[in-house]
Amino acid sequence: MKILVINPNDSNDMRLLIEQSCREVASQSTDITVVCAGAGVASVEGYYDGAIAQVGVLEQIQLGEKEGFDAYLIACADDTGLYAAREIAKGPVIGIGEAAMHYASMLGYGFAILTAQSKSIAILSQNAINYGFERQCKGVYAACIPVLALEALSESERAHLVARAEAILQHSEAEVLVFGCAGLTQQQSHFSHKLNLPVVDGVRAGVSMLEGLVRNKLQTSKRNTFQTNTMA
Amino acid sequence: MKILVINPNDSNDMRLLIEQSCREVASQSTDITVVCAGAGVASVEGYYDGAIAQVGVLEQIQLGEKEGFDAYLIACADDTGLYAAREIAKGPVIGIGEAAMHYASMLGYGFAILTAQSKSIAILSQNAINYGFERQCKGVYAACIPVLALEALSESERAHLVARAEAILQHSEAEVLVFGCAGLTQQQSHFSHKLNLPVVDGVRAGVSMLEGLVRNKLQTSKRNTFQTNTMA
Amino acid sequence: MKILVINPNDSNDMRLLIEQSCREVASQSTDITVVCAGAGVASVEGYYDGAIAQVGVLEQIQLGEKEGFDAYLIACADDTGLYAAREIAKGPVIGIGEAAMHYASMLGYGFAILTAQSKSIAILSQNAINYGFERQCKGVYAACIPVLALEALSESERAHLVARAEAILQHSEAEVLVFGCAGLTQQQSHFSHKLNLPVVDGVRAGVSMLEGLVRNKLQTSKRNTFQTNTMA
Amino acid sequence: MKILVINPNDSNDMRLLIEQSCREVASQSTDITVVCAGAGVASVEGYYDGAIAQVGVLEQIQLGEKEGFDAYLIACADDTGLYAAREIAKGPVIGIGEAAMHYASMLGYGFAILTAQSKSIAILSQNAINYGFERQCKGVYAACIPVLALEALSESERAHLVARAEAILQHSEAEVLVFGCAGLTQQQSHFSHKLNLPVVDGVRAGVSMLEGLVRNKLQTSKRNTFQTNTMA
Amino acid sequence: MKILVINPNDSNDMRLLIEQSCREVASQSTDITVVCAGAGVASVEGYYDGAIAQVGVLEQIQLGEKEGFDAYLIACADDTGLYAAREIAKGPVIGIGEAAMHYASMLGYGFAILTAQSKSIAILSQNAINYGFERQCKGVYAACIPVLALEALSESERAHLVARAEAILQHSEAEVLVFGCAGLTQQQSHFSHKLNLPVVDGVRAGVSMLEGLVRNKLQTSKRNTFQTNTMA
Amino acid sequence: MKILVINPNDSNDMRLLIEQSCREVASQSTDITVVCAGAGVASVEGYYDGAIAQVGVLEQIQLGEKEGFDAYLIACADDTGLYAAREIAKGPVIGIGEAAMHYASMLGYGFAILTAQSKSIAILSQNAINYGFERQCKGVYAACIPVLALEALSESERAHLVARAEAILQHSEAEVLVFGCAGLTQQQSHFSHKLNLPVVDGVRAGVSMLEGLVRNKLQTSKRNTFQTNTMA
Repeated sequence: MKILVINPNDSNDMRLLIEQSCREVASQSTDITVVCAGAGVASVEGYYDGAIAQVGVLEQIQLGEKEGFDAYLIACADDTGLYAAREIAKGPVIGIGEAAMHYASMLGYGFAILTAQSKSIAILSQNAINYGFERQCKGVYAACIPVLALEALSESERAHLVARAEAILQHSEAEVLVFGCAGLTQQQSHFSHKLNLPVVDGVRAGVSMLEGLVRNKLQTSKRNTFQTNTMA
Repeated sequence: MKILVINPNDSNDMRLLIEQSCREVASQSTDITVVCAGAGVASVEGYYDGAIAQVGVLEQIQLGEKEGFDAYLIACADDTGLYAAREIAKGPVIGIGEAAMHYASMLGYGFAILTAQSKSIAILSQNAINYGFERQCKGVYAACIPVLALEALSESERAHLVARAEAILQHSEAEVLVFGCAGLTQQQSHFSHKLNLPVVDGVRAGVSMLEGLVRNKLQTSKRNTFQTNTMA
Repeated sequence: MKILVINPNDSNDMRLLIEQSCREVASQSTDITVVCAGAGVASVEGYYDGAIAQVGVLEQIQLGEKEGFDAYLIACADDTGLYAAREIAKGPVIGIGEAAMHYASMLGYGFAILTAQSKSIAILSQNAINYGFERQCKGVYAACIPVLALEALSESERAHLVARAEAILQHSEAEVLVFGCAGLTQQQSHFSHKLNLPVVDGVRAGVSMLEGLVRNKLQTSKRNTFQTNTMA
Repeated sequence: MKILVINPNDSNDMRLLIEQSCREVASQSTDITVVCAGAGVASVEGYYDGAIAQVGVLEQIQLGEKEGFDAYLIACADDTGLYAAREIAKGPVIGIGEAAMHYASMLGYGFAILTAQSKSIAILSQNAINYGFERQCKGVYAACIPVLALEALSESERAHLVARAEAILQHSEAEVLVFGCAGLTQQQSHFSHKLNLPVVDGVRAGVSMLEGLVRNKLQTSKRNTFQTNTMA
Repeated sequence: MKILVINPNDSNDMRLLIEQSCREVASQSTDITVVCAGAGVASVEGYYDGAIAQVGVLEQIQLGEKEGFDAYLIACADDTGLYAAREIAKGPVIGIGEAAMHYASMLGYGFAILTAQSKSIAILSQNAINYGFERQCKGVYAACIPVLALEALSESERAHLVARAEAILQHSEAEVLVFGCAGLTQQQSHFSHKLNLPVVDGVRAGVSMLEGLVRNKLQTSKRNTFQTNTMA
Repeated sequence: MKILVINPNDSNDMRLLIEQSCREVASQSTDITVVCAGAGVASVEGYYDGAIAQVGVLEQIQLGEKEGFDAYLIACADDTGLYAAREIAKGPVIGIGEAAMHYASMLGYGFAILTAQSKSIAILSQNAINYGFERQCKGVYAACIPVLALEALSESERAHLVARAEAILQHSEAEVLVFGCAGLTQQQSHFSHKLNLPVVDGVRAGVSMLEGLVRNKLQTSKRNTFQTNTMA
């Protein structure tokens, strides 16, 4: 099985972190390639960035189709270009925000999302509604740390962020924490250990979810909404 | 990884069908045990049956905990005893109805559920709402065939059921079909081929979903709702 | 008219409190019998307890059907086994949580529920959604006192609980208080007097609601969902 | 206990029908007075009629307060002036549409409402949403018969209306029928017998609901929304 | 184009403020008349006041129809009598609360409403739900200042109210402020300047919205719900 | 006031039709410029087309900001790039789908949308939910005619489409028709005349809505979600 993971943020450091998480969770027989979208957005923060990065995501998927990938993971928590990608790929396409929310909803009564910047709150909240998790999502909270800075937290910054996560969980009465930024992907076990509850990292969740869909021989329905335009 | 699959319906024929689907989809390293709940309900049809079968499901999970299972799948589309099971198991617990709906929601704009008897429509509809899929679930429809009869359809019965499924899809404008009965588990590839769209079988979906959760090292949150009572 | 009140908690002290409330509110011509479910759950706290107690509730209803009861009240705020009970009884079946929420929704703009333990918050919140009171229910709050301890509050404990109720009402901007535990049933007039707003006790509400349904000659619909299985 | 029933429709024939239903269902100790609103609206059909009739309803309640009534029933299915009435009365106030929907929601999985004219569909649908019954209300259907004509159906008209009710139930997959017009109040037992499922008449439901609220010593909360203005 | 603006509050001072705002925003070719409803309610505070004032609003619209007005604006934030008015007018009818919410929903991710008295919170919240803005409306908050006092705030009262508005915006995480009282109509530019975000005044919004509807040659649909009764 | 109207479809014929509608509805003092997005998508049909066209829309808005436009209208019914556009423009930005739904919701009890192709149903339905019109939108229906063909209907094609619109209105019980494609913009008066109810054309609605917002001195809130990134 060949999975293409696309990082909408054009940051090679983040790409490497994502790759590491993918390797840690994937089955031995799964062949994973991680690329950046290449649209020139260093870090996706808000709708405009997403609109621009999206075009790169779609180009990578078009390349991926030629190379015979079985499934695609969009590795930004706002699931950049998700629906458009479903139109042009044959195999399943999911986003890491989406995958994380699905997992979290099965692990406790309500989850809270910790994202990087407050501009993303509206986007992730809207996605939660669209995916069906309006009730389960008890809140989206910003670390107020730039996306790229999340990749390389100092120990004291990390301790501070863990404390903020605990405060968020108390305030929202959530029972599961969701990482709302790929920059946190290597922090799952640390946060989970410190907070003593399940912490869902969308990169790992996404790889596993796609492996399952492919094992189930499930692809995107081409009946109507996601049928491929002849022009595309 | 050891997964315990519990069939709330005390039918060994159905247990064998479920086991076959589990084998077809599981990773080589996954060790799957399929048992019947043993509460004496031959086939779960409605709330009362579910209430009785549920006690058997919970007993199997208590046994499973002693034997060190990593995760549990409840193999009836009404997800018999799901929340209670989450209280007493350490590892993740999901139901096949739940797993199927999660998968289906990522494969098209709306899904329709085909269940056995009309008494189950309310239960599955209520579950869809609880899981967050009120909008995505375009309708629950009954085959009006007893659960156990679904296991052994004749060719003409099967053709008739495929035609009914197509009619359901047209009527509901759904783009994905969900099997709402474990008795249909061996029909996935046939229906998918005939209907030319993704058909989600909860047994397969459930096994893959649990494999993913375990690979992600995710267990049920014990922070509040699903903490284990000292009495249990 | 003969009403059977079933206490899912196997506590005779609580049974006596419930009986007292029933007597205080029932019409003279109503004949009320209060029994414990007998499933061995001293106090229902969480989903697992509810799943076990439920079987006792259903057995009492089956006995009740033989003895010709006209209606049934399930006297635990989580409405243990409500839907299954509707399948096997001819007359109406309601739960005290349900009855209280219906009354409360007609007495003010939004109600808050005071329950015993925080594990019940998810259950009561989910029930509120299922019954239609998602908007009216401004919050479910736990007293963090064991169910059985609520039966015998000291004066200082009671004063403390009244203060907590007032804080809950302020925080949630609710205008009506709902008792989310049968253990509080004898506290209605005290709380109502101290808080100066309507306090709804589900035991009393349930008895009156059933009297009304019976006087209206209304029974559970057997058209589809709640038709009795031939096996039951 | 003294209950004042107010018919927003200024039709003495309808007032007499309502009175008859009240007598049939009320407890012996309940003293019921049925009056017309007196605002000059012969039959309430639509928002404008309701706005005018409402003033009469409120005047009757102000008179009722002086005469010491314990509770009030607004006997039009659109619950004319309900919230305003709650501001000026001390005891509970409910509408027959409201009472019927509450009862129906506890008797089956979904109800359908049969009203007189299609102009009322929006009003009753909006009320169902406001009361919390958006999911339970499977549809509001018009008999397309004027309100006052419903009082005196010929046998063939009645048979035709029963057939229409059955068609409505089939189409909406509802399990309970709600009368959405006081003019049908004397038809409950006939329709229930013919349709073989519970048929809820709001007049009867309303009287019983109020008896229960009064026995529970429950009055409208005056904490904020329904506090009485000093001007009123 | 002739627009009739009806102030449900019988206060000439408020009428003059409203008139001033109308003039400031209307096109030169728009002819605006501002009248009081004349039902004797000095300031509408709550449901009862609204029910009484509504009759005056409807009478003004009936007069307006005779005088050939093209459109109507109800200038109270609770949109007194809105649906009934749509039945009797040919041209479009909107309320200032409604207009303000529509505008606000297009200017940011969520708005907060600042109203005069806490009794109005339920009414405005219910309207927000009915219009479709349940998610966008992040909260309705009361200034706890009588409606008529809002017309003539001292500088210190105004500064205090601006501070309260800022606190409301922080608490609700709203990005737009909506005035929930016509008494604030002349404060839009001051509040907008101080708060540095869009502040929507329903009077101005309503006039512009009606001008647009009339320019689009759009009138209320008379197909069913809002068809005029022959009696009206 | 200067308004920039951007047609995401790169069709000059459609641009001319849109321009004509703008002229017909705009105030004399409004200066309107209509451009194509220039991203190379001849007609936007589905998510992928929208993702590509969106980049062109955003470029036009960036040019527009330099030229001092006061407001922007996105002239495709799927409101291509709406939220991203709000980040980069100072003045208000709306889409024609959005504008039409707002207008329609104030003109009757429920509207139906007539779009070109069935692939757009999901997009428009999702938008209706996001804007708050889930209840008011009674359905989205496809003409099953390519977008560009809608520009130049023959008389018989138009008569056929009017008949389809009437059927849609009957089926959905909607009271207002919304055009879900800019290609229909010149058909408003014809359809409105034939169907005898309000038909809302988003191009006209959008121009008027923007004129109103600008007259109200309202711009997009830059408090959080739509603040401009320093990178953009």
